[in-house]
Order: sequence, then C-alpha cells, then structure tokens
Amino acid sequence: MYSLPSRVFETAVNELARLPGIGRKTALRMALHLLKCKREDAEAFGMAIIRMHNDILYCRECGNISDEEFCSICSSPKREKSLVCVVEDIRDVIAIENTGQFSGVYHVLGGIISPMEGIGPNDLNLTRLIEKVDSGSVSEIILALPTTIEGDTTNFYIYKKLVGYSVPVTTIARGISVGDELEHTDEVTLGRSIVNRTPYENSIRKKQ
Amino acid sequence: MYSLPSRVFETAVNELARLPGIGRKTALRMALHLLKCKREDAEAFGMAIIRMHNDILYCRECGNISDEEFCSICSSPKREKSLVCVVEDIRDVIAIENTGQFSGVYHVLGGIISPMEGIGPNDLNLTRLIEKVDSGSVSEIILALPTTIEGDTTNFYIYKKLVGYSVPVTTIARGISVGDELEHTDEVTLGRSIVNRTPYENSIRKKQ
Repeated sequence: MYSLPSRVFETAVNELARLPGIGRKTALRMALHLLKCKREDAEAFGMAIIRMHNDILYCRECGNISDEEFCSICSSPKREKSLVCVVEDIRDVIAIENTGQFSGVYHVLGGIISPMEGIGPNDLNLTRLIEKVDSGSVSEIILALPTTIEGDTTNFYIYKKLVGYSVPVTTIARGISVGDELEHTDEVTLGRSIVNRTPYENSIRKKQ
Repeated sequence: MYSLPSRVFETAVNELARLPGIGRKTALRMALHLLKCKREDAEAFGMAIIRMHNDILYCRECGNISDEEFCSICSSPKREKSLVCVVEDIRDVIAIENTGQFSGVYHVLGGIISPMEGIGPNDLNLTRLIEKVDSGSVSEIILALPTTIEGDTTNFYIYKKLVGYSVPVTTIARGISVGDELEHTDEVTLGRSIVNRTPYENSIRKKQ
C-alpha cells in the first residue's frame, strides 16, 4: 500500500476518518476538498469546530444545547412545563418539533445506557429529571427513546427510578408506520401493534 | 421547521454540511459526535484541518502533496523519470500506486477542466509538464484522467499542447472491467472495447 506523502495531510485525513460513518476514502475526498478551499474557509471550518466545543452551553432545565442559560423551548411561555418528553439527543428534539404535535417541554439525556460503548446511567442527564418529578411540577413523563435494546434498557431504568412517584410514565406509540403495508412489516412490530391496539376513535381524532 | 437552538452549534453544522457528499442530517450527527468528544480531541480535529491548509507543500516536480520540496516518488532513484503519468489528484496516485504496475513518475494536475465549476486550463498545474516535455526528458506521456466529458476535454487540451513535440501521448485503456459480464456493460464501453481491441498476446502477457 502506498502511504500518503505528507504527514500534515495524513493527520487531517485520520481526523476526518474518525467522524461517524466516514471511511478512509471519503476522508481523503474531504481533506482534498478542504485543501482546495480558500485559506479563510479552511480556517473558518477548523475554528467552527473548536469554538463549538468551547463556547456551547446546555440548558439548565432540560440539558438541550443552547446559547443561553435556558433554551428557547424551556423559556417559552407557550409550552406546557408539566409535560416532559425524555429524548436521547437534540436530533430527536428537532424530529419531534418538526411534527408540530407536541406542546410540552423536553428532557435531553445526552445519550442512552450502552454497556458496549461504556455509557452507564451516571453518564446521562438524569438528576435534574428526578428533581423535577420530586418537586411535583411534572404531570406526565413521555419516554421517546430509540426502539433498540439500549433504548429499552434506558426506558426501564428511568421507569424504575420514577416508580415511587405518582407521576404517569408513557412511551411513544410503536406500531406500523403510516403508509406501510402489513406484509412488509417485521414480525415483532406487527405482533406488538396487535397487542397494543388502540381504540378506533383515537385514529379518527388524530386525522382531524 | 425548528431551528437549532445554538448559534455556535449551527455554525459548526453548516461548516460540516459544506463537505462533499454530506447533507444536513449527517452534518448534525457529526457535530454531535464532535461535541461528545473530549476537548483535546475536538481541538486536534480543528487544528489538523487548519494546519494541513497552512503547512502543506506541493512537490516542485510533479505537483503532488508533499512535506518536502520533492515528493517521495520524484526523489526515488528506482522510478523511471521519463515515463510521466498525468492524473487529476492524489487519489489517483494512490489508486495507481496500489496496483504496483507503474514504475514511472506522476504529474498531478490538481483538477480537470470544468466550465461548470469554473476551472479553466490556467487553474491546472500544466506549465511544469510542458517545460519537462520541452526539455526533452520525457519519453512518454500517459493520460490517466477520468472517463468524463471534463476528463476528455482535459485530455484533448493536453494533447493539443503537446502535439508539436515528438513525445508519444497515450491514454490508459478503457474497456470492460475484469470480472464484468458483457450483457451488463453499457453500450458505449462495450462499443469502445470492440473498436480498441488489443492483440490476444497482450492479455496473456498481463496475466503472467
């Protein structure tokens, strides 16, 4: 194998290849792209990453990324503060916000329990959630974590932590996606969707 | 649409989304990954890009990326200096070097003529190539540019520039890939491969 002929270039390619989902060939293409940029653009790129890491704040209420002490959702008077939706990270906040169907606030864990990646319950932003529930200001906790073993483990951990309080804990509905055909749905999802069937009136109400 | 709740984060996502082949969702995932990194790692990432752009050198002989005045290929006594393979960028050098079939040197153009992207002949590293040919030190020019309209245009431009000199200009063979079936090959490639058929002895020789 022919190795890269420049050490500074090699370092940049290696750093880019550490990004999630980026292999060596793509990293090489990115490094060449950055090399062909103007000097100011390459500097803006590098500095944007460094600044993001140094200057970013996290909302004191929900743990979401923010420029101020409290994020725009937590400080909005229009949101129902007692309805708390627990999510893994900001991508889930964006996804749920884009549906326009949720008027409560979020609680961003910053990860989910994953022994494989060395993430335990103590690495998650959970203390503030328990405090909020303990203060009696929460009327419902909605768990909106991924449908994976890690997601299920985290759901169960949070449920166990909150079982002593009288606050209801729900999870977002799992079932067949809108537009999907039954024959192409996997067995577990189809099975669950039969067990957790909902009154027909609910689906009519949702369409309106 | 819910916009990102932090300006420094938004800037980083926008910068990452400018990389080739990276959409907004992937950029968001990358930015979150970099945010979860240690501070040193995020700084190493940003600085690697800035340093690459500032510190990199280009080989004075062939235009390839280098840490020194001349790259490792041009300064190697084992390479045939008179056999020059013209390529678009360092990725092609890597690809050809990995075949182990080429013992000459390269000439890296740093791009190909592309009116769509505003790249003209003057943006390419061509002066040194003409100088080399003019000095009589080149016995053959091998054009190894992409099989696209831009590649063909650049091939033709270089051919025209060199037509006054007695140096032979060749292109790498285009035809059916090893392992491909005829029925799945596109018509242009199959047509060209019939027109540019090679003596059977050549293919026996290559296998040995």
